[in-house]
Amino acid sequence: MKMKDDWIVSDNSLNEKDLLKSESIFNVANGYIGIRGNFEEGYADNMPTIRGSYINAFYETASVSYGEKAYGYPETMQKIVNVTDSQDIDLIINNQKFSMFKGTVKSFNRYVNMKEGYYRREADYVFPDGKEIKLKITRVASFKYLELFAINYEIEKVNFDDDIIIKSRINGDVKNYVDKMDMRVSSGNENILDVKSTSVQNDVIQVLSETKSSKQSVAVNTKHMCSGEFHVSYDKEEKSVMAVFKVKPGNKIIEFNKYNIYTDSRRCKDPAKKGYTLINKICTLSFNEILKSQQNYLKRFWSTADIDNEGDLALKQGLRYNMYEILQSAGKDSVSNISAKGLSGEGYEGHYFWDSEIYILPFLTLCSPQIAKKLLRYRYTILDSARKRARELGHKKGAAYAWRTINGEECSSYFPAGTAQYHINGDIAYSYIQYYLVTGDMDFIKEFGAEVIFETARIWIEIGHYDNGLFKIDSVTGPNEYTTLVNNNYYTNVLAKYNLQWAVKIYNMLKEKDSSFLSSLCSKINLSEDEITGFQKAAQSMYLPYDSNLKINAQDDTFLSKAIWDFQHTPKDNYPLLLHYHPLTIYRYQVLKQPDTVLAHFLVENETNYETMKNSYDYYEKITTHDSSLSYAVYSIMASKLNYYDKAYKYFIKTARLDLDDTNGNTKDGIHTANMGGTWMAIVFGFAGLRIKEDYIALNPKLPVQWNKLQFKFLYKGAKVKVTMAKSETKIQVRTKVPINLKVNDKMHSIANDSIICEKI
Amino acid sequence: MKMKDDWIVSDNSLNEKDLLKSESIFNVANGYIGIRGNFEEGYADNMPTIRGSYINAFYETASVSYGEKAYGYPETMQKIVNVTDSQDIDLIINNQKFSMFKGTVKSFNRYVNMKEGYYRREADYVFPDGKEIKLKITRVASFKYLELFAINYEIEKVNFDDDIIIKSRINGDVKNYVDKMDMRVSSGNENILDVKSTSVQNDVIQVLSETKSSKQSVAVNTKHMCSGEFHVSYDKEEKSVMAVFKVKPGNKIIEFNKYNIYTDSRRCKDPAKKGYTLINKICTLSFNEILKSQQNYLKRFWSTADIDNEGDLALKQGLRYNMYEILQSAGKDSVSNISAKGLSGEGYEGHYFWDSEIYILPFLTLCSPQIAKKLLRYRYTILDSARKRARELGHKKGAAYAWRTINGEECSSYFPAGTAQYHINGDIAYSYIQYYLVTGDMDFIKEFGAEVIFETARIWIEIGHYDNGLFKIDSVTGPNEYTTLVNNNYYTNVLAKYNLQWAVKIYNMLKEKDSSFLSSLCSKINLSEDEITGFQKAAQSMYLPYDSNLKINAQDDTFLSKAIWDFQHTPKDNYPLLLHYHPLTIYRYQVLKQPDTVLAHFLVENETNYETMKNSYDYYEKITTHDSSLSYAVYSIMASKLNYYDKAYKYFIKTARLDLDDTNGNTKDGIHTANMGGTWMAIVFGFAGLRIKEDYIALNPKLPVQWNKLQFKFLYKGAKVKVTMAKSETKIQVRTKVPINLKVNDKMHSIANDSIICEKI
Repeated sequence: MKMKDDWIVSDNSLNEKDLLKSESIFNVANGYIGIRGNFEEGYADNMPTIRGSYINAFYETASVSYGEKAYGYPETMQKIVNVTDSQDIDLIINNQKFSMFKGTVKSFNRYVNMKEGYYRREADYVFPDGKEIKLKITRVASFKYLELFAINYEIEKVNFDDDIIIKSRINGDVKNYVDKMDMRVSSGNENILDVKSTSVQNDVIQVLSETKSSKQSVAVNTKHMCSGEFHVSYDKEEKSVMAVFKVKPGNKIIEFNKYNIYTDSRRCKDPAKKGYTLINKICTLSFNEILKSQQNYLKRFWSTADIDNEGDLALKQGLRYNMYEILQSAGKDSVSNISAKGLSGEGYEGHYFWDSEIYILPFLTLCSPQIAKKLLRYRYTILDSARKRARELGHKKGAAYAWRTINGEECSSYFPAGTAQYHINGDIAYSYIQYYLVTGDMDFIKEFGAEVIFETARIWIEIGHYDNGLFKIDSVTGPNEYTTLVNNNYYTNVLAKYNLQWAVKIYNMLKEKDSSFLSSLCSKINLSEDEITGFQKAAQSMYLPYDSNLKINAQDDTFLSKAIWDFQHTPKDNYPLLLHYHPLTIYRYQVLKQPDTVLAHFLVENETNYETMKNSYDYYEKITTHDSSLSYAVYSIMASKLNYYDKAYKYFIKTARLDLDDTNGNTKDGIHTANMGGTWMAIVFGFAGLRIKEDYIALNPKLPVQWNKLQFKFLYKGAKVKVTMAKSETKIQVRTKVPINLKVNDKMHSIANDSIICEKI
Repeated sequence: MKMKDDWIVSDNSLNEKDLLKSESIFNVANGYIGIRGNFEEGYADNMPTIRGSYINAFYETASVSYGEKAYGYPETMQKIVNVTDSQDIDLIINNQKFSMFKGTVKSFNRYVNMKEGYYRREADYVFPDGKEIKLKITRVASFKYLELFAINYEIEKVNFDDDIIIKSRINGDVKNYVDKMDMRVSSGNENILDVKSTSVQNDVIQVLSETKSSKQSVAVNTKHMCSGEFHVSYDKEEKSVMAVFKVKPGNKIIEFNKYNIYTDSRRCKDPAKKGYTLINKICTLSFNEILKSQQNYLKRFWSTADIDNEGDLALKQGLRYNMYEILQSAGKDSVSNISAKGLSGEGYEGHYFWDSEIYILPFLTLCSPQIAKKLLRYRYTILDSARKRARELGHKKGAAYAWRTINGEECSSYFPAGTAQYHINGDIAYSYIQYYLVTGDMDFIKEFGAEVIFETARIWIEIGHYDNGLFKIDSVTGPNEYTTLVNNNYYTNVLAKYNLQWAVKIYNMLKEKDSSFLSSLCSKINLSEDEITGFQKAAQSMYLPYDSNLKINAQDDTFLSKAIWDFQHTPKDNYPLLLHYHPLTIYRYQVLKQPDTVLAHFLVENETNYETMKNSYDYYEKITTHDSSLSYAVYSIMASKLNYYDKAYKYFIKTARLDLDDTNGNTKDGIHTANMGGTWMAIVFGFAGLRIKEDYIALNPKLPVQWNKLQFKFLYKGAKVKVTMAKSETKIQVRTKVPINLKVNDKMHSIANDSIICEKI
C-alpha cells in the first residue's frame, strides 16, 4: 500500500531486494548521525541486510595496497565506520519472538513523513498462537539535538492481555559492509570498531567503542522509557548491553521509548561523559516534544525549500524526498560535508567528492545558506591538507584538494580518475564564488573564501604552461571519467579560468575595501601582486578547445579524433560500462559517463555562445551513457536552456525518482545525494532558467507542458524570492528592503517589496 | 686487486654496498638455475645480504590488492621464488668459524672466469689463533647439466695440521626479498616456500619444498665428496639438513665438493625422484670434468659471440661480461624466457618483458640461434594465455600478450604503464620476423611464427580505427613510460604497421608454398582472406605522426604540445624521476625515460628519412633522462647511424659497464639483461651499422676513433660472417655454400666462401 500523501514516501514490500533498497530509502539522519531503515528485530534467517549506523566524518584509517606503487600515492585511506547499533529491539509474547517473516502480517505500512520529520513502521500482526498486536514504531534523528536517535515503539494488544517482554540492545559488535565485486563499494576492512567498555549506570546504558587504527572513539548512551508496570533488568556483555523489560498486563497500549545519544571524539574530548550528560538532559523530553521540534525545524526548512509543481503525486513525493534527503545528509558542524551516499549507506566509503560543491550546494546556497556556509567552512578546515597534498604532488605553491576524502587527505588510490581531476579545485572555488554572489556575504569571503580562492587558483599556474601564447593545462581528467589523463579538458580549463578571474577580482575588491586585511592575508600565504598579474594573464590566455568542423567545444585536445563507442552492439546488461569493460577499452572511445563540456556550458555559460552550446549538447548527448547518477540533471538543465522541452522533462523525471525507483540498481548501498541536488537544479536552473550573475540574477521560465503550475522560492542577497510559473504567465514576488536586480527573459528589473508578472513569450 | 685478464671480472671489496652489488655480479647461472654470489659462510652479523637461488619460470602466485579495482584488472600476480639454499658451507678449525669479517684476511680475490665458465673466491686467511689457510672456492652452474649447481671448496692448511670441520647445509627455510620503498622490487609476499620433507638416503641429502599458493614443488638433491680421511654425520631438521664432515689431519689440501641438483614440478612430474636419479649419475663426475664441459660449451659460444675490439681492458671485460650474462640468463627449455634481471636477483619479480624481444634476441638470433629459437617458442607456449587476455580486454579476435608475466598471464597491476603497452604485441611479432630474416627458417615460421604473427596483428584491427582515411590507434602507452595513455604513439603505430605488413606477407608466402598448411592454420584460428585484406589496408593507411614545424616524428598526438621538463632546476638526486615525482607530474611534461620514437627509427628505419631521424634524435635526446637502463644502447646505435661519433661512443661506454660499475645504483637487485643485449647492439648495429633487410643484410662500418680494430661474428642464413673493422678498411669474411646478399656502404655484394675488403669512406 502506497500512501496517497505528497509528504509521504512509503514502500511496503517484504521482498529481499526491496528490503535492502528500503534500508537506504528509510534512513533517518540529520547530517550528524544516520541510521539505515533496518527492522529493529531483523529479518528472517539468511536474508541479506546491510545493518548500519553512521556518524558523518567519523572514520577509520587503513593502509592502501597497490600492486605497483608509485611516488605520491596515498598510503592511507579513510572509510566511514558502521558504529554501534542502537536499533535492536525484540518483542516477545508467550515465548514467541515477533518477526514479520513468521506469523501473519494482516497489514503493514512503512513510510517517511517529510513534513514532520520521522519514519514510521506500522503493522497489524498475529502471532502463530493467534495473539494479535498493532505495532507502531517511529524513528527520529533529531535536527534540534543532532546527537539524538530516538525510537518510539508502541504496542497495542488487540485480543489478549499477557505479560510482554521487550529486549532492547545496544550492540557494539558491528561490521562494515564489503563487496569485492563492485568497485563503488569498499572491498575490505570490515572489522574496524572495538568495544572498549559497556556499562549501566542509573538506567543509562553506555557502550564506548574505538576504531582499531584511527583511534577515534564513539559513545552511545541510551535510556529507555516504558509505560505501564514493568520490571527491568540489564544483561551486560563484553560488546553489548541488553535491557530486558517485563511489562505486566493491564494496559492495552504499551509505549516504549528508546533514546540514544551518539557522541564522538572528533567533536569532543570525552564522548562518554558528554553523552551521559546529554542523555540525562534529553530523557526529560517526551517523544511528542521531540516530534514537535522536528516539525518546527522542517517548517522553517520547507518554507523556502518546498517546490509546488501541481504535478502527479509520485513526482511530488520524489521532489520532496530528494530535498529532504539532502537536509538529512548535510553536515552542519564544519567538521563534515555531504558524502556521496549521505548517511544512508557505505557506498564510496562515506567520502566527500565534488558532488557537494557542484550538485548540492546550489540548492543549499539558495534555500538554506546557513547550512551551505557550514559546508564551505568544512573545505576551509581542510585547506592545510590540500596545501600539503600540493607539495606531495610537486607544486611549489597553492592547494590541491583531495578528490575523495573525509579528513582532507587524498583517499583516491586510482589517480587517473582521482587525483588527476584537478577540476575539484575549480569546483570548490566556484562554490565559494556562487555563495558570495547569492548572499553578498563579504565577511565570509574575507574570513574563509579569499584564502581558498587564492590557493586553488595558484595550482593552475603550477600545472599550466604557455604554448604559442595560449595557457594550456595538460595531464588532467575531467568530470567524464570514461576519458582520463588528457590535455586541455574544456571543463577544467573553463573552471580554472573562472577561478583565476575571481582570484583577481577578490584581490582587487579587498584591496579597495580592506587593504590592511588583504596585506595580512597576502603575507600569511606569501602572495604577491605579481602573482595576481600572472593569474590575470593566464585567465585571459586560457585555451578553450573548439572544433571548427563540428562547431562544438571539444572535450579535450584529442577526444574528437577517437572512434565513437559502438552503442548499437552493446548489450543493455553491459551498462554501466565500468563494470563490464577494462578502462583501456572505455578510454579508447568517445563515450561519456556523464556530462563534461555540457556541464561547463551550464556552470560558466558566458564562455561560449548559444549555437556552440546547442551543437555540443547534440553531439555529446548521443555518446553519453548516463552511467553516473550525476548525468541526468545537467542534461535536463541544458535541454531547458536549449528549448529541448521533451528532453528537459524526460531527464528531469529520471532524477526525481532515481532512488525511490532504484533506477541505477544500487540504492541498497545508499542514496545518490548529488542527483538529489540535481533534481532541484533541473527545476530552478532548468525549467525556471535561473542563473546567478555578477550583479543580478536571471530567470528564463519555461514551464513544462505537463504542468499547470510551478512554484519555488529562494533567498538572494537578503531578499525572499518566490517564483510562480503558470501556463500563461510567471509571477515573481520579492520581499526585501534593498532592491535586487532581476533579469527576466532578458529584461532587467530592479525590485524591492514588489512583484513582477511576465507573460509567457 | 682487479685481475688483468680480459676474460675475468673481479671485485674484492668487502664493503657492505659493494657486497650487495657483487652478489648480483657474481651470480652463477645457466638459464635454468641461478645462484647469487653470496659467501657460503655469510657475512658479519647485521650486514645486509640478499641471499638467493632461483629457478627460471618457477613462481609463486598471490592475489593482487587494489585500492580501487576495475574490470579486467589481473587478480593474481606471479613472482620468482627464492628457492632452497644450497650455498651454505661453514668451515670450523679449533672451534673458530671461518668468516672474512673476523681474523685476518691476508689476501682476497673473487672473480668470474668467462672463458671457462666458473666463479671463484680465493683467500689467504689467518684465524684469530694464528692458523693460516688458503681457500679456493669454485662455483659452476653447468651449461651441460642444467640442473647442477656445483661448489668445489678447497682448503690448504698453511701452518698447521689439525682436524677440520666442514658443515654443509641445504636450507629450505628461505624468504624472498622485499623493499616497500622501491616499486621496481616486490613489496610483499616474502614467505612463499614451505618445506615438505627433508631426508638423507645413501649420503644424498634431499629437501623437497612447495610454494604455498601455486603449489609448485622444487627438490634439491645434494651429494658431497671429500678428500682425506673423514667422518660424516647428518643433522636432519624440519626445514634443513646439515652434513658435518670431521676431516682428520694428514692432508695439506682438503678438497670438498658439493653437487646440488635442482629439479622442479614445472619441468617434470616427480622432481624429488628425478633429482635423486640425476645426482647419483652426476656425482660420478669429477669437478674437473664438470669444468671441462663448461669450457667446451663456452668455446662454442664464444666462437661466434666474442667481440674483439682491441680496446681497453675494462671495456673488454664489460663487453664479455654482458654477453656471458645473457648466456647465463637465457631460458633454454621453452618454458622460460629471460627475466629483466636474469637469474641474478629478484628485481621486477622475475618477470619477462619486451626486453627479451627488442634488446636481447637480436644478439642471440645472430650468434646463438638455437637459444633464440627456444625463447621464441616460449612466446608460442603462452599464446593461449594471450588470446584469453585479449578476450578479457574486450577484443573479439587476436592475442594480447601480457606486459609482464612468467606463465603468460598478465602481472601488471598498473595498466597505464603495463597493459596499455600494446606495443609488446608488435615487439614479439618483430622478433619472429627478424629470426626468420636472419635464419631463413621457414619451417619455424610455419610451425610457430605464422600463428603468433597473425594473432598479434589482429589486435591492431581491434584497437585501431579509421579517421579520415587514416588508421589510428588510441589509448596506448609507448616505450617511454613517462607518458601514458596517448593516441597514435609513433612507435606503436610503426610496429603495428610492420606486424600487419608481415602478416600479409607470410600469408601470401604460405599460400604460394604450402597452401594446405595455410588452410589448416586458417581454419584453426578462423582467419579469412578478408581479414588479410583488412590487415593490408590498415598497414597502408597507418597514421604516423609527423610535426611539420619541428620536422620530426611526434611521439604521439599531443606530446609536443606539452611543456618541456624543467631539467635545469631538477636536482641530480631527483633522478630517476619515477622515484621522486608523482606520475601526474611526470606525465605533464615532455620528458623521456628511454627512447621511444628514436627506437622506432632504429627498428623500422624505412618508415622515415634520414633528415627526420636526425631531427628527431636531436629533439628527443635533449629531453631523455635515461632513467631506464634500456636507454643508452639505442641512443648509441642511432648516434652511429647519424654520424654523432662522440655520442655513439659515450652512450656505448655507459652500456658496457652499467652493472659492473653499478651506474644505475640498483645492481644489487640484479643485473640489467636488456642493457647487456644493448651493448652488443651498440657495436654491431651501431659501429658496424648492421641491418637485417628483407633479402639481404647491410653493413655501414664506422670504427670508433678510440679503437684500432673491431672484430665480431654472426650467422646469417647458414653463413658464418666475420667482420673485421680497422682504421683504414673493413674486411668481411663469409663462409657459406649458398651465396648471401650483403650490402656494404650501399654497395650490394653476393658472396659465398669469400671475403670483401672495403676501404674506409
